[in-house]
Formats: sequence, C-alpha cells, structure tokens
Amino acid sequence: MPKAKPEELRALTRDVFHAAGVPREEAEQVAHLMVLSNIRGHDSHGVRQIPRYLQRVQEKSILAGKGVTVEKDTPSLAILNGNRSFGHFAATHAMKLAIAKARKVGIAAVGVHNLNHIGRVGAYPEMAAAEGLIGMCFVASRGGDKAQVPFGGIEPRLATAPISVGIPVTGKQPILLDFATSVVAANKVRQALDRKKPAGDGWLIDAAGKPVSDPAQYIAGKAFLNPVGGLAGHKGYGLAVLNTIFAGILTGGGTLASTLPNLGHDNLTMMIVLDPFAFVARDFYDREMTTLVAYLRNTKVRPGDPPVQVPGEYEELYQRKVEAEGIEIEQPVWDAIMKAARSVGVAMPQPIPAR
Amino acid sequence: MPKAKPEELRALTRDVFHAAGVPREEAEQVAHLMVLSNIRGHDSHGVRQIPRYLQRVQEKSILAGKGVTVEKDTPSLAILNGNRSFGHFAATHAMKLAIAKARKVGIAAVGVHNLNHIGRVGAYPEMAAAEGLIGMCFVASRGGDKAQVPFGGIEPRLATAPISVGIPVTGKQPILLDFATSVVAANKVRQALDRKKPAGDGWLIDAAGKPVSDPAQYIAGKAFLNPVGGLAGHKGYGLAVLNTIFAGILTGGGTLASTLPNLGHDNLTMMIVLDPFAFVARDFYDREMTTLVAYLRNTKVRPGDPPVQVPGEYEELYQRKVEAEGIEIEQPVWDAIMKAARSVGVAMPQPIPAR
Repeated sequence: MPKAKPEELRALTRDVFHAAGVPREEAEQVAHLMVLSNIRGHDSHGVRQIPRYLQRVQEKSILAGKGVTVEKDTPSLAILNGNRSFGHFAATHAMKLAIAKARKVGIAAVGVHNLNHIGRVGAYPEMAAAEGLIGMCFVASRGGDKAQVPFGGIEPRLATAPISVGIPVTGKQPILLDFATSVVAANKVRQALDRKKPAGDGWLIDAAGKPVSDPAQYIAGKAFLNPVGGLAGHKGYGLAVLNTIFAGILTGGGTLASTLPNLGHDNLTMMIVLDPFAFVARDFYDREMTTLVAYLRNTKVRPGDPPVQVPGEYEELYQRKVEAEGIEIEQPVWDAIMKAARSVGVAMPQPIPAR
Repeated sequence: MPKAKPEELRALTRDVFHAAGVPREEAEQVAHLMVLSNIRGHDSHGVRQIPRYLQRVQEKSILAGKGVTVEKDTPSLAILNGNRSFGHFAATHAMKLAIAKARKVGIAAVGVHNLNHIGRVGAYPEMAAAEGLIGMCFVASRGGDKAQVPFGGIEPRLATAPISVGIPVTGKQPILLDFATSVVAANKVRQALDRKKPAGDGWLIDAAGKPVSDPAQYIAGKAFLNPVGGLAGHKGYGLAVLNTIFAGILTGGGTLASTLPNLGHDNLTMMIVLDPFAFVARDFYDREMTTLVAYLRNTKVRPGDPPVQVPGEYEELYQRKVEAEGIEIEQPVWDAIMKAARSVGVAMPQPIPAR
C-alpha cells in the first residue's frame, strides 16, 4: 500500500484544485483540511475525496472563489450563505466568525447554508479548542442521503446527522466528540464491505424491520442505519432530530422533508462557540479539567484491556503514528487520485519507500 | 393502587413543604414541578420524593427562602449560586433568566451551582419551548452517585448525566429530548427490581467487566450502568463527559473528580437558550418544523407496530391519560407520603374512587 508524507499530499491536493480553477488560497484551505482528516484517522474524508470533489468543481456543483455572503449579523449570531462553495471553505468561515463573536460576548452561534460537503466534522470544533474556546458543530443535509431510520420505523428518513464538540484542555490535546447519530457512520458500512466483514450487531435494518448483517445490502439501498442506542435508540434518534433542526432549519437551509426547492448536495452547518473563561476563572477551569481528564484515564479496566480514553484520544494517538510513518493510501484509491491529478496536469508525489 | 387528582396532589405537596417552613411561593413552585413529573410520565421525580425532600428540609440540607445570588451577569450569560435551595427553585430561576437574555441577544447561557436535586430535567427546556424558544438543560453532579462507567472501564466514575432539549413547534406540543447519557436512568433499574424483572441487555456491567442481568446487583453497588450506545458506547460516554464539563465545570460547581470541598448533594445545571426567530423568519420556521414533524410521524413501520413518535410524544400521550384518569400512586409510596404529611400536620387528599 503506498505511503506518502502529509505535506506532499497537501501540495498535491492544492495543486489539483488550483489547476481546476480554484483560487490558490481556497485550494490550500481545502487541502489542509482534507489531509488533516487522514492525519486524524478519518481517511473517509481525506485525499480519497480528490476525484469526487474535482468532478464537482468541473461540473460547477462546487463553485470556488465566490466567498460567503452574510445574510444576518448580530453581536451573538450570524447566518451565512455559502454560495455553493467547498463546504470546508464556508464552514471554516462560519467557525472563525463564531470564534470571534464568542470572544466578545461569551456565547455565539453562526449558521451556514448553501455549501457543499464539509469533510470531517471534528475539524471545526478543533479550531475553537485550539484557541481556548469550546466549539460545537451540528451538521444536517438537504440533498444528501436518507441513511438513517427514525426509531421504531423501517424506512430511512434522516441523514447520519453528525455532531462534534471540541473542549480545550490547557497544555494538552482538546477533548473531542465527533460522531454520527446513527449507530455507525455510513463509511463504517462501506469499510466492512471492503474488508469482507459483516456489519456489526444492530447497525442495519431492512424494509421488513429485520436486522441485516450483509453490508452490501446497505450499498444496494436495501438496508438502512439504525440510530445509536439499540433498545434505547430513541436517544440517537432524538439527537438526529435535534441536529436536523439546529443545522437544517435554524441556518435557513431546510431538511430532507423540506418542500422548498432543493439546491443539491449540501452539509448545512451550525456552529455554537462558548468562551469558558467568560463563565469561570482560568485557574479553576484548568485545575478542574486536568483533574477530570486524569480521573477518567485512571478508571479501572479488565486485566489486559487498554486504558480508558478521553474522547479525542483516538485522533491524538493516530496523528502521532501518521506523523512518524506517513499516510497509507490503498492502491485503488492512489490510482484514482493519480488519474484525477493527471487529468489536470498534476504529478503524484513519490511514495515513501517501504522499509 | 390509589389514584388522586393532580390539583389535590399539588396542594398536598405545597402544604407539606410550607408546614416545614418553606415560603409558600417557593413551596408552590416545587409542588408544581413535582406533580408535573407525574403528569408527564416520570413518577420517579414526582410526589414519591415528598418524604425525602421533607427530610432534607428538616435537616437543613435543603435551605428554603434564601433566593439565588447572581455571581456573574452579562447580556449573554450569568452564573448563579443556588444557596443550597430546592433544585427546582434555583433551576427555574436560571431557565427564566436564560429565556430573558436569549430574547434580547438570540443565544444565552445561565449556569447554577450549589443547589439540590432539580427533579425532571425536561421541565426546564419545556419552559423555554412554551415561550417559543429552544431550551437546553445539561445536568452534572458533585456529591451524587457515581453510577456510570466510562466506556471501556469497569468502575463507575460518572453520574447518569442527563441532557434535555425542548424545541417549540408552533401550535403543537414541543419536541422534547430528555435522557440519561447512560443506557438507562438509574430509576429504570430500580423499577425493574420492583417489578421483579431482569435488567435489560447491556444495561449493567460488574467490577469484573461481565454483563449483569440482576437489578439487585446495581442497588447493592456491585453493578454499574453502561453508557448508551452498546458497542458504540463511546458516544454515550462522550455525551456524559460533555455534560460533566458544561454543567459541572462551566457553572463553577466542579465534578465528581473535583478536589475542591464538596458542598453535598447537588445537580449542577447549565441552561442554554436560543431564540429561533433571531436566526430565521417565523413563517420559514413554522413551515419547516410542521413539515418535519409530519414527515417523521409518517415513517413506514412494521405491520401492527405503533407509529413513529416525535421526541416528546411519550410525555404528551401520558399527560392526556393522567389528566383524564388521575395520577396512580403505588400503595407503599402513598403510605410513605401520608406518614410524612402527618408528621407536619397535613392531611392526605381523598383518593379518586375506583370505578
């Protein structure tokens, strides 16, 4: 399996989009976030998306260089129109604006509609946490897949509707929640199929309400994701509905049920940012957070089991490994990227030689 | 099983606390919220708590008539000291203040620490939703039970850490999420024991990491609650950690890990309120919400299954039943309330005669 250095994949990604007409700075930003997905252990939203995004740029379903338009703006909140930009670009704009507002007023919300796929949801709360703020990102869909069944139903009517929250821990990696409200993300099902493994217990349900273990049934549209929670799936379902309203309706976008004209594939996104030091003193926050993190990590485990992780530790450990060893890319994905890059006259980097 | 009218139970509850020295208005507020728990289908937080709360008032671990103290106050946020009040009283104050602030600035947060048990968490977001606002309530604990294991651990280090969100639907009952981040609330385990039923699959784990089906093990402190999610229990765990930080640390209260002096039993509480009409136009919101609610309810179900519910519909249906038929109270609970009431010179209402 080819391996490449993060900085070379970043340059490749930027050059491919720039060659297709995306302004260099915007291409750079998208490339940064895509490769960061690979670095943080979420390959599904990484460089494997280059061919798909390139096609969308060429078809003009992703429009670049249009900026975002501010439709509503108060000290505490804003609504942005993403002008069909790269989702990464518009969502970064929204998070940066929410950060600036929260610094001033303590808590702020910025919603953005009319934008494309934003990639790894966790990237945006991480931006807030890196600046010492708490960031929340809610994501809904207008034109995307109906992937998830409402609890008690046998028909998909919701997106996987992910939520992410990043919380700073002074001097350490932030706490990061980043998860689909379905029992797993759609990509986990695709991965099971690729690896010739069954879908996990409780992941999938079919149109007769029976559990499904063959991941190919999902790809064929004959099985659907359950909400997280199993018998308590009303909890995952509730969170999916919450997400649909926060990111879909409060941003002015709409939902999968909407009767408004559909602008196409999009990731409607609501950012909420809190400044913890507007609530409590810095020394109190630092001491309490440090104590809590140590307390959770020190939880007793079964003999031989790995230690309990703090949310976000998976990403941290993965990043260390990739920074030391490079990013591994499956051969068919590498070949597809190469084909896309060549079509716009960009060469692939040299893979890192196998040891 | 005795049945009583809601208004008579309200008067009883108020009179018991008032007789014990609680100012009449405060006693009225607590009584309203306690009986509302019975009305909305959460008997665990209803009138069965009268004896326990009365004892706490008499021991002066609940202090009444002290009001709350504002420790921090900006247009967007506030931190309150509950002065060891009834949790119901202090949390109502916090939610009302958050509602007033959100009306002015669009999004606001109010935290409160140093208060007692707040009862049914959903009651507070319902207050916001009744006024056309979105309310969120996060609850953590300082002195409460360690009930829930961190995902991957075999030792309880977290409270059940419930979250509730209420979202208005114009002209209809609000959408209401109200759930523990553990797979079930502790009370569900107690209920299973009372009804001589096993704990559900995946509810409990013991100190050896084995699943437990005997609910008595939980009561004996030999089994603990798992986070919601099963194999995806990192999601429930992540939400419990989020709750611990929002309600515990950002309110200035602390966590179960805190090294600060512990003030005793408390439900640290963070309210976040959003004004949807500060984000989007009222007609857009109304149309989108109405469409979404109908769309979810119309989800196909297995032949013979009940229709898919919108979150909060359970409470709505339960309330209709109770308002028509009265509140049922198990005989031992009725007797315990009678004993407590008599001890302060208050008589029980006449039960509704059986038909």
